[in-house]
Amino acid sequence: MNGRASYADWIAVDWGTSRLRVWAMGADGSVRAKAESDDGMGGLSRDGFEPALLHLIEPWLGGTPMLVLACGMVGSRQGWAEMPYLSVPAKPGDLEPRPVKAQDPRLRLFILPGLSQSSPADVMRGEETQVGGFLAKEPDFDGILCLPGTHTKWVHISAAEIVSFQTYMTGEMFALLAGQSVLRHSVAQDGEAPEIFVEAVGDIMSRPERLAQRLFALRAESILNGQDGVAARARLSGYLIGAELAGSRPYWLGQNVVVAGSAPLAQLYGDALAAQGLTTRVTDASPLTLAGLCQAAARILERTT
Amino acid sequence: MNGRASYADWIAVDWGTSRLRVWAMGADGSVRAKAESDDGMGGLSRDGFEPALLHLIEPWLGGTPMLVLACGMVGSRQGWAEMPYLSVPAKPGDLEPRPVKAQDPRLRLFILPGLSQSSPADVMRGEETQVGGFLAKEPDFDGILCLPGTHTKWVHISAAEIVSFQTYMTGEMFALLAGQSVLRHSVAQDGEAPEIFVEAVGDIMSRPERLAQRLFALRAESILNGQDGVAARARLSGYLIGAELAGSRPYWLGQNVVVAGSAPLAQLYGDALAAQGLTTRVTDASPLTLAGLCQAAARILERTT
Repeated sequence: MNGRASYADWIAVDWGTSRLRVWAMGADGSVRAKAESDDGMGGLSRDGFEPALLHLIEPWLGGTPMLVLACGMVGSRQGWAEMPYLSVPAKPGDLEPRPVKAQDPRLRLFILPGLSQSSPADVMRGEETQVGGFLAKEPDFDGILCLPGTHTKWVHISAAEIVSFQTYMTGEMFALLAGQSVLRHSVAQDGEAPEIFVEAVGDIMSRPERLAQRLFALRAESILNGQDGVAARARLSGYLIGAELAGSRPYWLGQNVVVAGSAPLAQLYGDALAAQGLTTRVTDASPLTLAGLCQAAARILERTT
Repeated sequence: MNGRASYADWIAVDWGTSRLRVWAMGADGSVRAKAESDDGMGGLSRDGFEPALLHLIEPWLGGTPMLVLACGMVGSRQGWAEMPYLSVPAKPGDLEPRPVKAQDPRLRLFILPGLSQSSPADVMRGEETQVGGFLAKEPDFDGILCLPGTHTKWVHISAAEIVSFQTYMTGEMFALLAGQSVLRHSVAQDGEAPEIFVEAVGDIMSRPERLAQRLFALRAESILNGQDGVAARARLSGYLIGAELAGSRPYWLGQNVVVAGSAPLAQLYGDALAAQGLTTRVTDASPLTLAGLCQAAARILERTT
């Protein structure tokens, strides 16, 4: 490339709490380059966003303004600019990217809004774009999309519309309990024990009130009976996911469920649901955000070219 | 005092994970002085215990060896010296303090063992001494002693014996969720809202499977509806204590329950149980550990004088 021509036709940005991921895109949807950094929303002050972005995308910019489309926590109150929430029920196509002013004239920045639900109160920022990407591939899907992560989302989709959703802090609770509570002495940092996991899920699902009493017992079992750290990890994971499945039962019971996530965690959800007699499809969520950003970018490019 | 005479007849030590508390005692049970520091077990390496203790009690020592009696996490595997656990059922008087060698010849150190339960697996270190102090005052008590704290203990006492017990990590979970999870943006650092608390307790007790879904809703309610931080704090506390009461129901239902703790937390447990129709007695736990140490010290002094 020379100094004036652009390397990309537009730039896609997935900007979450802990990670910043960018893609140099061709107008045909091809990925020309990608990059990422630890400059997540959580670690940036308001005037830190533009430098963090330029640090990754500068080589892709040319002499004319470049469409940059971002989703995720970058649009939260603590982000670059606060985007409104669109209330469910909503179609991903209803999520209108809003222009945000950047200092650098080469940036023609848009940020996608998030989704909200009034009762029970709930919000999402970023996952709505994953849902858009999922529906771009499977426009006729009718059922539940489960997106496991730090904050797992259960999304009810019908007639290409997000009908309702529910958020569980299971991933964050696991990280806090396994890494920072007294259980850190008993729980291994990795390793799997699928049978123990599934048993722990069933234990809590059949009697959710057991959750609170089971947690400290993980510590006591390792002190008194030398419980293996991998077994303790599988039990803790099973107890917390079991509590989530007990709470989200109306979302999955008798439903058509797709679990879209990264490999080990998504499979745990699939295994847990299978043990409840529900056959789910477990897929990789990593292409979904970019697919959703492509959908939204196409709408902007249509309007402006 | 002069250089050779001792200021105290013996020294009582309550040595937990985060605090070290010491008392200079007269043989008649009177307290001549007290002191405390942040040198809890959690922050000390094995050879840091004796200096941390001497730092507080040095002025109380004389020319002859001094009985020093300690209870709590100082007797754990990560403590000064690992004490065994005595298995329930057990009387507090069965807990035999064990001599531990100190470098300083002026220290005649004893540490109390902890209590264990094989099924469900559970352990305590320190609370058994509180139970001993409680029974010294109320030898005929028959019922449940609830000791709220970082790790709340429910102790079944009958015929002056600890029959069984159960530990809940409610306090630690509250601290992690309120201080380190995404909820920290929504939950006030202090303040009370008793009606909201009691309502949240009832919400979870009636349907314990709601716990997982209620947590993130605290964040969403503050984002969407400007929920007050004190209300969010009361709800979080109510959800977690509600989950504990749902799990510990066999311990308190229809029982004679005394809640012994520090003021605001113990009262929350009392209020939560009252809302379930159970009248409890709420008392101050602060004198219990010293009372229990006095009981155990009397047994050593009897034997050796």
